[in-house]
Amino acid sequence: MSLTVKSQAATAPFVVAFADGDMSMSDLMGGKGANLAEMTRIGLPVPHGFTITTAACRHYLTLGREPEDLDRQVGIHLAQLESMTGRQLGNPADPLLVSVRSGAKRSMPGMMETVLNVGLTDAVIPGLIARGGERFAWDCYRRLVQMYGRTVLGVDGELFEVALVAARREAGVVSDTELDAASLKKLTTDFRRTLVTAVGEDLPQDPREQIRRTIDAVFASWNVPRAMTYRKHQGIGDDAGTAVNIVEMVYGNTGPASGSGVCFTRDPSTGEPGVYGDYLPNAQGEDVVNGSRTPLPLQDLADHAPAVYQQLMGHLRTLETHYRDLCDVEFTVEDGTLWVLQTRVGKRSPAAAFTVASAMVSEGLIDLDEALRRVDGYQLESLLHPRFMSAEGELLLATGLAASPGAAVGEVVFDAQTAVSQAAEGRDVVLMRTETSADDVGGMLAAVAIVTARGGRTSHAAVVARGIGRTCVAGVDGLVIDLDARTAACPGGSIKEGDTISVDGTTGKIFRGALAVRQSQVAELLEKQADDGSDAEQAEQAEPVAGSLAAAVLQLLAHADHRRLIGVRANAETSPDALRARRLGAEGIGLCRTEHMLLGERAVLVEHMVLGDESDRAAALADIEELAHTDFLDILRAMDGLPVVVRLLDPPLHEFLPDLTELSVEVALNNAPGGTPDPQAALRLDGVRRWHEGNPMLGLRGVRLLTVVPELIEAQVRALATATLELRTAGMDPHPELMVPLVADPAELTAAAARMRGAIESACVADGTTLKIPIGVMIELPRAALTADRLALDADFFSFGTNDLTQTTWGMSRDDAEGAFLAEYRESGLLDVDPFMTLDDVGVGRLVRIAVEEGRRARPDLGLGVCGEHAGDPISIRRLVSIGVDYVSCSPPRVPIARLEGGRAVVLAESQSTP
Amino acid sequence: MSLTVKSQAATAPFVVAFADGDMSMSDLMGGKGANLAEMTRIGLPVPHGFTITTAACRHYLTLGREPEDLDRQVGIHLAQLESMTGRQLGNPADPLLVSVRSGAKRSMPGMMETVLNVGLTDAVIPGLIARGGERFAWDCYRRLVQMYGRTVLGVDGELFEVALVAARREAGVVSDTELDAASLKKLTTDFRRTLVTAVGEDLPQDPREQIRRTIDAVFASWNVPRAMTYRKHQGIGDDAGTAVNIVEMVYGNTGPASGSGVCFTRDPSTGEPGVYGDYLPNAQGEDVVNGSRTPLPLQDLADHAPAVYQQLMGHLRTLETHYRDLCDVEFTVEDGTLWVLQTRVGKRSPAAAFTVASAMVSEGLIDLDEALRRVDGYQLESLLHPRFMSAEGELLLATGLAASPGAAVGEVVFDAQTAVSQAAEGRDVVLMRTETSADDVGGMLAAVAIVTARGGRTSHAAVVARGIGRTCVAGVDGLVIDLDARTAACPGGSIKEGDTISVDGTTGKIFRGALAVRQSQVAELLEKQADDGSDAEQAEQAEPVAGSLAAAVLQLLAHADHRRLIGVRANAETSPDALRARRLGAEGIGLCRTEHMLLGERAVLVEHMVLGDESDRAAALADIEELAHTDFLDILRAMDGLPVVVRLLDPPLHEFLPDLTELSVEVALNNAPGGTPDPQAALRLDGVRRWHEGNPMLGLRGVRLLTVVPELIEAQVRALATATLELRTAGMDPHPELMVPLVADPAELTAAAARMRGAIESACVADGTTLKIPIGVMIELPRAALTADRLALDADFFSFGTNDLTQTTWGMSRDDAEGAFLAEYRESGLLDVDPFMTLDDVGVGRLVRIAVEEGRRARPDLGLGVCGEHAGDPISIRRLVSIGVDYVSCSPPRVPIARLEGGRAVVLAESQSTP
Repeated sequence: MSLTVKSQAATAPFVVAFADGDMSMSDLMGGKGANLAEMTRIGLPVPHGFTITTAACRHYLTLGREPEDLDRQVGIHLAQLESMTGRQLGNPADPLLVSVRSGAKRSMPGMMETVLNVGLTDAVIPGLIARGGERFAWDCYRRLVQMYGRTVLGVDGELFEVALVAARREAGVVSDTELDAASLKKLTTDFRRTLVTAVGEDLPQDPREQIRRTIDAVFASWNVPRAMTYRKHQGIGDDAGTAVNIVEMVYGNTGPASGSGVCFTRDPSTGEPGVYGDYLPNAQGEDVVNGSRTPLPLQDLADHAPAVYQQLMGHLRTLETHYRDLCDVEFTVEDGTLWVLQTRVGKRSPAAAFTVASAMVSEGLIDLDEALRRVDGYQLESLLHPRFMSAEGELLLATGLAASPGAAVGEVVFDAQTAVSQAAEGRDVVLMRTETSADDVGGMLAAVAIVTARGGRTSHAAVVARGIGRTCVAGVDGLVIDLDARTAACPGGSIKEGDTISVDGTTGKIFRGALAVRQSQVAELLEKQADDGSDAEQAEQAEPVAGSLAAAVLQLLAHADHRRLIGVRANAETSPDALRARRLGAEGIGLCRTEHMLLGERAVLVEHMVLGDESDRAAALADIEELAHTDFLDILRAMDGLPVVVRLLDPPLHEFLPDLTELSVEVALNNAPGGTPDPQAALRLDGVRRWHEGNPMLGLRGVRLLTVVPELIEAQVRALATATLELRTAGMDPHPELMVPLVADPAELTAAAARMRGAIESACVADGTTLKIPIGVMIELPRAALTADRLALDADFFSFGTNDLTQTTWGMSRDDAEGAFLAEYRESGLLDVDPFMTLDDVGVGRLVRIAVEEGRRARPDLGLGVCGEHAGDPISIRRLVSIGVDYVSCSPPRVPIARLEGGRAVVLAESQSTP
Repeated sequence: MSLTVKSQAATAPFVVAFADGDMSMSDLMGGKGANLAEMTRIGLPVPHGFTITTAACRHYLTLGREPEDLDRQVGIHLAQLESMTGRQLGNPADPLLVSVRSGAKRSMPGMMETVLNVGLTDAVIPGLIARGGERFAWDCYRRLVQMYGRTVLGVDGELFEVALVAARREAGVVSDTELDAASLKKLTTDFRRTLVTAVGEDLPQDPREQIRRTIDAVFASWNVPRAMTYRKHQGIGDDAGTAVNIVEMVYGNTGPASGSGVCFTRDPSTGEPGVYGDYLPNAQGEDVVNGSRTPLPLQDLADHAPAVYQQLMGHLRTLETHYRDLCDVEFTVEDGTLWVLQTRVGKRSPAAAFTVASAMVSEGLIDLDEALRRVDGYQLESLLHPRFMSAEGELLLATGLAASPGAAVGEVVFDAQTAVSQAAEGRDVVLMRTETSADDVGGMLAAVAIVTARGGRTSHAAVVARGIGRTCVAGVDGLVIDLDARTAACPGGSIKEGDTISVDGTTGKIFRGALAVRQSQVAELLEKQADDGSDAEQAEQAEPVAGSLAAAVLQLLAHADHRRLIGVRANAETSPDALRARRLGAEGIGLCRTEHMLLGERAVLVEHMVLGDESDRAAALADIEELAHTDFLDILRAMDGLPVVVRLLDPPLHEFLPDLTELSVEVALNNAPGGTPDPQAALRLDGVRRWHEGNPMLGLRGVRLLTVVPELIEAQVRALATATLELRTAGMDPHPELMVPLVADPAELTAAAARMRGAIESACVADGTTLKIPIGVMIELPRAALTADRLALDADFFSFGTNDLTQTTWGMSRDDAEGAFLAEYRESGLLDVDPFMTLDDVGVGRLVRIAVEEGRRARPDLGLGVCGEHAGDPISIRRLVSIGVDYVSCSPPRVPIARLEGGRAVVLAESQSTP
């Protein structure tokens, strides 16, 4: 007796009964209709109904009117509905009423047109009174007029609100639920008069005409501007069209044996097993949601209607088993009969995502691959950072951009120098600056958190903070620092140096005083597990709730490790950071930035090298080599057995020198009347001027330094070689690699590599041994990517520096662009994403792809890594996996994220290739 | 009787007699051998001989010894040689002596191994004495021992020099030519003793062994390190090998009826017709060249041996007709018999290149395409600039890099302000700065020349100077400017402001005082011709010598115009520049940089806009719009009927603001004890700080300004639209186009274009008309090139800004890189060419190619132009033609160069595709 066909063959059907559809048919039936059909199919008590398909809608949109045969088909299905429900349209004794709702394939919240109680006319009021009483009947009627008026006739909804206000005033009540039958009856009349006044027509008294016109109105609503804007924003095509569901009305407000509820099959915030939901007796579904009455826990239903409750529990189990996922469910009980009105896969918190996925694996509902597809790196990231217990009632000082997540408490300092010295005394300090530069990195390393007045989520402060795992709030509105007075003005009051503040890098809020911090138990367990080799089961036994979450994370991370093909390394310069990265699962150091070893107090050594005379230079060089030797020993020891990629000095030399403007002012004041001329300062100024560059990012940096300070590079390489030999002698297994930054032309790499090999050899000769250190090149300029075939001839590996590559490909500096225009670009929608956060596929991604393909073609055993900021961003990692790099290297706290996404990339790709 | 085959089929021959070769066989016979064969073939009196081919050499190099059959084949050819010359090897009465010389396909000057007089032994001395006397015989013999010793036996040449010095001392003479027969005989004995002492063997007394071993030595010389280095540097393959020419010796030093000479078939410096050369009676060829005796003009030969002279003239005519080019020729007369020893196409000056090419067209020797292939843009460029008459005896102040060619005389000024004010008084000024920035552009426009202490050929000063056609010397060694004292110290003395100096931008030299300038008559004529429509013939009649050169240039430019497919436009902002460009043949303005209209005194308007309050802003905006309107009227009028591409404001805003460091010092001094606080200056400093950027090149510029000063852009567009409408009303035919700079993402272009169309429309509405102004996008960032397909949807045309594209593709700023490392890169050979001067094919060129292909695929009617520095560089133009752009736009003085190279690109491509 099926009037429809399931397949979307030659001509897609215009109407599908719930009994004839299933969940695979969401293209045709919309998401809502397909789920109703599925529940019908598996025997759940869904009210009878049918779906007018998206195919019909598309015909309507193309023709500008209903397709020829639609009315006849709807008529046939309505007749079936009458026969199944035992009620008839227009039957005064027991009328069939229906809801008419739109339902597209992809949910469009707030865009959904709904008209309830369709089929209600003056003639059938008696039958409705018999079903739920007088007040119930008139309340249904006035609602129909109101919804029909707005949706079908286009009457301004405000007009009905005005009448409602008048009715409440007249009745002396405050809420609509207090209006009695008489008031509601009068309101129905008023509403109908409003229709006539506004558009010249009344509610049709033919139920079928009501239905027909409501269907047309829903179809037409697809192309209202609001819906088009929403679809454009969500990337939903304009030609999909919407389905329309016609469902028999059931009522939860017909008396004490009725009621409505909303529930989840598990706790959506913790993922704990057990049903979680709200119930309201003698109420409709919308009353549960809109908060006009306080809902009761589901237990209430168990107490008052245990049979219905047991029935519901059974259905929920059925649904979860059937959908193999946490479901959210709407239900209604009418006079003791349970109806399931809607279900869908439920939204959940990051913690619940992991807990549910892992539990369902244990329960045999899904396999580990499926579990991995159901969590993501963004969720994991939010689980790895400390949080404040509560900020309720705390004094909010200011709000900025959440630039690097976490929660930290410390004493405010206003410069890097003070940060370093206070931290050395064992204090926790928060470094607060107008903005940061390379000069501040030492202070940032010493601080527990960084706050800046200017700059965005990709400013220097934000990038460095994320890179070294410090909490950071950037671009704080209204923060003005007075460096002379050692105070700062905030919108929430002023603070002075030494004051304790609490910085929430996850929300961007800054509070006065010390808030209680809750450490991330997941992060702690991850590190602990690595330390004592405890496994997921042990973890679960140790800490009941967070332990079970942590166990879930460990389980899915382990599976991601099992599935992923991409390696995960970390960017680190110190042995504590390296050890932490190793505990979090890093398989090596992919980027050790030697400039971080020369900042802060050591910068003066570089200054001596660059500005000093011959003997200054030699002394500084010797000191640098010795310090580097010690640093390399530390990090190679920490990463014993694993690769450590050391990058030669990258930043412009002048970053190690005093600021030109500050020094110019100092010298001018020295030379002014009353000042004391300082020949040393004047000499320094000459030097700083000589090294000053208009655009240092495009100037003397990276491999280009070979032309001016080759000794410095040789000293670094020699220090690495001797540290390696020393550890080898001590029986360890060091694996250093060397990397040349900012190469634009293959000849630069060739020259640098020759010099580096010479330095390694000289260290070996002194030691009477041999040593092979792989030499790679950073691909961080478009020209390097475009000459990859030639670079590959002289490089053992490529490492993509996607930060700089983004800067030059887009021609925008991360530091300058954010405040100047990039933030505004994002706000105005000119750019969807920040290319410094998420790898830009068509520009930067294309260059990476070119370099990978052409480099590997020239040298099949070429190593390929990524060490830019993107290596820790979930979407970017998936793109990088599809491009085919060997490993990503990210900041230590992001190592678990990269591991997870590395595994997900594989299972997601597999599920896409096998539909 | 031919023993060889001409074709290089299956097995290439090892030996080819001159009589059996021709000029097409240089692969096999080397350049020298092929030319000797060709001259033999056309009946010129070439000494008999044969060539041992490169094939034999390659066999030798592969086997490490002579190929099996070579000795036998050489023997057969030597027998033929004996029969043709009538002399025999080892014949004491009249011995055959030969020269053995290497001769590769491509000339390797200084790498060529030569042994003369081979075959000379003790036994044949009597025959040689009979031929040229005793002194002649022993001189030949000692030379053989010397050359054989060095080349074949590897004896240190210094040993022979020591012996020569001793011989001269003993004879009491100063030069070798004064040594008598006895001395030379003794020297021969000494030399042979030297051989024995050094390597244990004497000169073989078997002539055939001498020949055999000399051939081997020449083959082996191919792989000496010196030759390999040279080949690598010149890009010559290592496997080509060299040929060896065995030629009968003839002597110009056998008596008064003998002599040697070198001559050109036309004057190689002017191109004037008529033989030009030197002659020395009773001398060998090397005596003419090495300057030991002063050569006589060829006329001497005419006077003393008119028959020989007439014979030579006939041969020279034959050669030029045959080679269809200016030839240089070496000849020897032995006892009244003329021998032609060598010929090749002669090197010539730029003027001669044009004159000869044009003359040969008139003479019917070559066609115009061939003439065009024989000149190039570099030659033309050198003809278009003024030169100093002579710098002989002038006081050289300093030398720097020849950054923009030309010769200019003016009074020194040390800042842009003074340059502008002095120029306004009608003085010619030379702007002398340590380095220049955008602030100086006004002063540079006002100056006749620019001199900087720092920066290279691609520094700001150099690039701007070339762009606006000013003479410039950059990076002057030892120039130190004292701005306070208004003096400058130079290596050649100190100068003060107002002193007159002469700047030679072609040589990089700076002189004290006013040197006499000779204008480029070619340039004058080019412009004049455009003005009065005079043609090449009239030009020739007007000015005898330069006129004929100018006529040649005009003729070849006209043919280039006829042949070229690429359009040529100019970069200009003022109507004088635009008019000049039009006279020089520009077909439009491809780049009108609106920022040039806002520099100098007008910069204050932008400052008011950016830093001022609401009313400042409005007033400044109105002024800017009015000025822009006038400027656009001027340039559109100048280019009536031709396109004018106006680019929106491009540079960082802060370029219009005061310098941060200078202003900081000023404010600090104001606030110091004894200073007077200036609230205005402090306020300005706040503003300047707010707009300061660490890397302005990568910051708030170009289309990004839309986010902060959209009104400015609208004002510019409106001014262009109203100016266009005004001219249209006046009956003119203006063709403005608009161009958006620094686009990285298609959404930026879309937003900018919408705003621009709005501004055009508002101007039209006010005027009650319509106006379509094409809107294009600059492709100057890698990402723009990589998203060309999408940009093309919103752009009427692309214009490649190859300067900025090079900056970002290479990640190096033109200004900073040159002094910091780029100059050193070039000097050390790390980079062959400066990518800012010549389009880098593998990096920037690839991006241009991608954008052209993908842009045109998306929009077939897309216009494609290039407006970067490279648009005026000959090699780059050829690359751009091959990529397929529609037009190049260069600085006005380079327009003729672009026209010439545009035509050459076509004829060169045709000649390559039809071998």
